[in-house]
Amino acid sequence: METGMDASMPGHARPAAAGSEGYDPLSSKPYQRVTVLGATGSVGKSTLDVISRHPDRFGVEALVANSNVAGLARLARQVGAKIAVVSSESHGPALREALAGSGIEAAWGHQAVLEAVDRPADIVLGAIVGFAGLEPTLRALKPGRALALANKECLVCAGDLFMSEVERHDVTLLPVDSEHSAIFQVFEAANAAQVEKIILTASGGPFRTWPLEAMQKATVAEALKHPNWDMGSRITIDSATMMNKGFEVIEAFHLFPLEADQLDVLVHPQSVIHGLVQYRDGSLLAQLGSPDMRTPIAHCLAWPERMEVPVERLDLAAISSLTFEAPDLVRFPALRLARDAMRRGGGAAAVLNAADETAVAAFLAGRIAFMDIPASVEAALDAMEPRLGRSAPARIEDVAALDREARSICGNWIAARAS
Amino acid sequence: METGMDASMPGHARPAAAGSEGYDPLSSKPYQRVTVLGATGSVGKSTLDVISRHPDRFGVEALVANSNVAGLARLARQVGAKIAVVSSESHGPALREALAGSGIEAAWGHQAVLEAVDRPADIVLGAIVGFAGLEPTLRALKPGRALALANKECLVCAGDLFMSEVERHDVTLLPVDSEHSAIFQVFEAANAAQVEKIILTASGGPFRTWPLEAMQKATVAEALKHPNWDMGSRITIDSATMMNKGFEVIEAFHLFPLEADQLDVLVHPQSVIHGLVQYRDGSLLAQLGSPDMRTPIAHCLAWPERMEVPVERLDLAAISSLTFEAPDLVRFPALRLARDAMRRGGGAAAVLNAADETAVAAFLAGRIAFMDIPASVEAALDAMEPRLGRSAPARIEDVAALDREARSICGNWIAARAS
Repeated sequence: METGMDASMPGHARPAAAGSEGYDPLSSKPYQRVTVLGATGSVGKSTLDVISRHPDRFGVEALVANSNVAGLARLARQVGAKIAVVSSESHGPALREALAGSGIEAAWGHQAVLEAVDRPADIVLGAIVGFAGLEPTLRALKPGRALALANKECLVCAGDLFMSEVERHDVTLLPVDSEHSAIFQVFEAANAAQVEKIILTASGGPFRTWPLEAMQKATVAEALKHPNWDMGSRITIDSATMMNKGFEVIEAFHLFPLEADQLDVLVHPQSVIHGLVQYRDGSLLAQLGSPDMRTPIAHCLAWPERMEVPVERLDLAAISSLTFEAPDLVRFPALRLARDAMRRGGGAAAVLNAADETAVAAFLAGRIAFMDIPASVEAALDAMEPRLGRSAPARIEDVAALDREARSICGNWIAARAS
Repeated sequence: METGMDASMPGHARPAAAGSEGYDPLSSKPYQRVTVLGATGSVGKSTLDVISRHPDRFGVEALVANSNVAGLARLARQVGAKIAVVSSESHGPALREALAGSGIEAAWGHQAVLEAVDRPADIVLGAIVGFAGLEPTLRALKPGRALALANKECLVCAGDLFMSEVERHDVTLLPVDSEHSAIFQVFEAANAAQVEKIILTASGGPFRTWPLEAMQKATVAEALKHPNWDMGSRITIDSATMMNKGFEVIEAFHLFPLEADQLDVLVHPQSVIHGLVQYRDGSLLAQLGSPDMRTPIAHCLAWPERMEVPVERLDLAAISSLTFEAPDLVRFPALRLARDAMRRGGGAAAVLNAADETAVAAFLAGRIAFMDIPASVEAALDAMEPRLGRSAPARIEDVAALDREARSICGNWIAARAS
């Protein structure tokens, strides 16, 4: 803490600005300053929605976005951020103009993003999408801080490196993703050795019941129809191929002290049970909830407490039925590719991610067919195999090099396919 | 501890008898002595099955049964108990004979039961069925001990009295019942004030889908067909009327720091989810498991650790579907009666239990119809209302007096009905 407040003392004075209306009598936690990386995305906006309902508990230090100036300026004004930053240099002047008279500092460019991350904050929410989130999120790891992690590349592409930095800086790492949050909520840390397996649930996506032949002809519009969650286009396509679940398995592998074969995927179309932990006494503990990211976000912000969020409460009698099925590895080869990459190590998961991002973009652009996504990823993994080491990449530059190479190889495969 | 061993020291010497085969490297808990009250019942036998698989962790001090001499002697020999006790005086000599040459002490009669309870033990499992379990289980409350509670009358009939004794003696109270164990496993004690409600699941019993007219003509054989659990006859009938779920609501009311209207019942025919806790961030945490009492029993014995039990692991993909519905208070008036008795206080729940036990016996004897069970209980509650105080009975004798009166009144109602 560099704020001059004694954050470790429960019940220390709240700032004068906090009205008694928002005062939470159930919390003994001190007032906390939050920085949000990726503020204008869906996780960022949900985070600011939760924060704005608890002005007695949270204040916003910095908001960082890529280039959505209007959205960022509006959010920064709403929550009274100290500073708002766009990583795109060219959008800087517009941001300055949009914040004129607000008293909120405006900054832009890569270096400004890193400086915003360095500002004092008790909690950083890392929700920048894509490989670009890796550097600022790594930079956010500072002693005494909590990191609520939504960016998946940190763990998928650089899990070993990232987790060793988490440990080195003694950071409290809290998963934002609904599946990992579910596991985290029912994972008894003291009984980690007594866990038999964890089970990540998957909706199965829009093609859960489609025959393979139909999937081969699936259109972009069909693949973008996610049954339960409203998300960005890449993650929606990744849900349709189930690559997203494969990434989540890799993330879980780094987040929880388990072996690769202790991680299971279960298809559960209603997305009501988000994750389960099976203990060796036969108990499975599970977290359930409506598909609203504000629940896992609030869990990160309030942890180890819980705080009120106005999400729709689950009514199981109204839902009536929850169903489950084993994943089909023939129609969803991405699950196999991800598991193999996790077991392979040595940077294979970074290749997996880069190739997938390239392939998804090509599919969205109408250049390749739906089932070409896993096919191109597999081709990239095969081609990159000789270049992968036995141990995980030690530096972020090594990960970035793998990422670039994989994109290039996958791009070539796609160009050959599309021509 | 009066055993002369320092039980508070992790990793202290195991007894020489324990082979290295049963040694549990995941446990840091000391060796513990267990006394089982109600050893020959289904919970008692399951408990001894679990204990016998962990000879490095547990030894058996005393086994107490009612009159099943052969069963008790066999179990006592199997687990190497120090003493075996039958409460029935007349079965004493037979027990002595059955244990001859075993080195296991034999004792009998009410006083011998209480003396067995007084013997040094780290954990007492209280699984005596019925009102008779109240006195020995209360007696088992001693400082530093854990009580794994399976007897329901302690909480249903004398909840206030019992819980104040639990607190006074600083006893660790662990629920054995699968529903309460489920709640206990996912109830974050530090966040008790942030719990919105707890949900006890109910199979709905054999008459879940029956129309009221058919229930009115239900036979004893039909009522004894419980879909999921293999239990004693009274609890099976109580499941058919759902009175058992009503009792469980009352038990939960005493076990957990919640108000009456924070306790919900949800019909879930597969009995896979045993209980849920809903927090104010929208999360529901749940425990799931196969219908095998060894899981909650092992949770009590190992708590706060978990230990291996060879119960069938849940395979949700194989189970395929979990269903839920709201309980029907018209066909299952016992739920309403139990809730009213819980809210009424002043000993009403003791009347509820006594009248129900009387009515179930009359139904099993073919003297009254199935729907007469709740009707007779309601009649007894109405008749006893003037005799109930505003506050809970303060002494066990007061509870016993209510119990006797309620049985008498309910018996009269039944006699009038049957004539």
